[in-house]
Amino acid sequence: MDALRARIRAEGRNLGNGILKVDSIINHQLDPTLMLQIGESLAVYFRHLAVDRILTAEISGIVPAMMTGLALDVPVVYARKTKPITMAGPVFLETAPSHTKGIDVNLLVSAEFLPPDQNVLIIDDFLASGRTLQALARMVRSAESRVIGVGVVIEKSFEGGRELMRQAGYDIPIHALATISSMAAGQIIFADED
Amino acid sequence: MDALRARIRAEGRNLGNGILKVDSIINHQLDPTLMLQIGESLAVYFRHLAVDRILTAEISGIVPAMMTGLALDVPVVYARKTKPITMAGPVFLETAPSHTKGIDVNLLVSAEFLPPDQNVLIIDDFLASGRTLQALARMVRSAESRVIGVGVVIEKSFEGGRELMRQAGYDIPIHALATISSMAAGQIIFADED
Repeated sequence: MDALRARIRAEGRNLGNGILKVDSIINHQLDPTLMLQIGESLAVYFRHLAVDRILTAEISGIVPAMMTGLALDVPVVYARKTKPITMAGPVFLETAPSHTKGIDVNLLVSAEFLPPDQNVLIIDDFLASGRTLQALARMVRSAESRVIGVGVVIEKSFEGGRELMRQAGYDIPIHALATISSMAAGQIIFADED
Repeated sequence: MDALRARIRAEGRNLGNGILKVDSIINHQLDPTLMLQIGESLAVYFRHLAVDRILTAEISGIVPAMMTGLALDVPVVYARKTKPITMAGPVFLETAPSHTKGIDVNLLVSAEFLPPDQNVLIIDDFLASGRTLQALARMVRSAESRVIGVGVVIEKSFEGGRELMRQAGYDIPIHALATISSMAAGQIIFADED
């Protein structure tokens, strides 16, 4: 997605240790028009798969998921990391290590919002190690639904998350709108795309 | 906003102590089409005020703010409650008591995303005590910008937040898409509207 790559080139900063600062466009400040385009681009890729529902994780997955849900006209549910006072009834709970926080985080979804026998598309902002995405996928399986694809805004392919998902048995389409193949030596190198 | 009130009537639950469970429509599961309508309704109300930028707070303010930003074609920034590893440089920091968590929470915005001399519209999911909204408004003043309005999805008018904002000197338009005037005795009573 050219508009996204152009923004990352202009505004992204390599903070070292594989940490990409893109908070001017994705996870602190948001450009609504770019986000609409992101949702539409992800929707185009997955539309043929008869998506019933989108699952993501708070916080920065919410807006890309929302915009994809708008384009596909399906409900979106986001996993909470802490239990809100309004969360009642049974929940699906999975744990994943946080890349940026250095600790394990809980992911919780009320069972009522993850019904069985659905085609679930998982959306997130980043595909890095793939651990969060795998935790979301385990949740969908626990709910007796099917993960039919994974869509992300930015993939850091040098972290190998795509292969780890394949090795974990998720033989599903995985689509990234921008793929960064290296952040060595302070650079931000994009994979050849499209 | 009739569609919103209908959904709250059908799905909202009064959990006692003024806690309204609307997580099937606003803060866990999201209906993208309803959210688009919410953004458009808030945009219609504030469009004449020459909004430069929208400020909200994570987590459940993000989607209504995003959808309003989409309709107004302005950037959105959301206050973080914890400092992400990607947050560098000076920040504006305010503290507000959380209604649902029973503790004070920090609200942090990178100074780079809250520039001076802007017309800032504050959007959130709820107006209850108004403490979070006041903290966001203080942040805008610290940034030497102007709060030109406050838009919320649901106002719980019985908590008096609107009056507290007036008393704190915020003589600005405040607009709610659904106003709940009482949650006494397990009920959910809407104010007469429109």
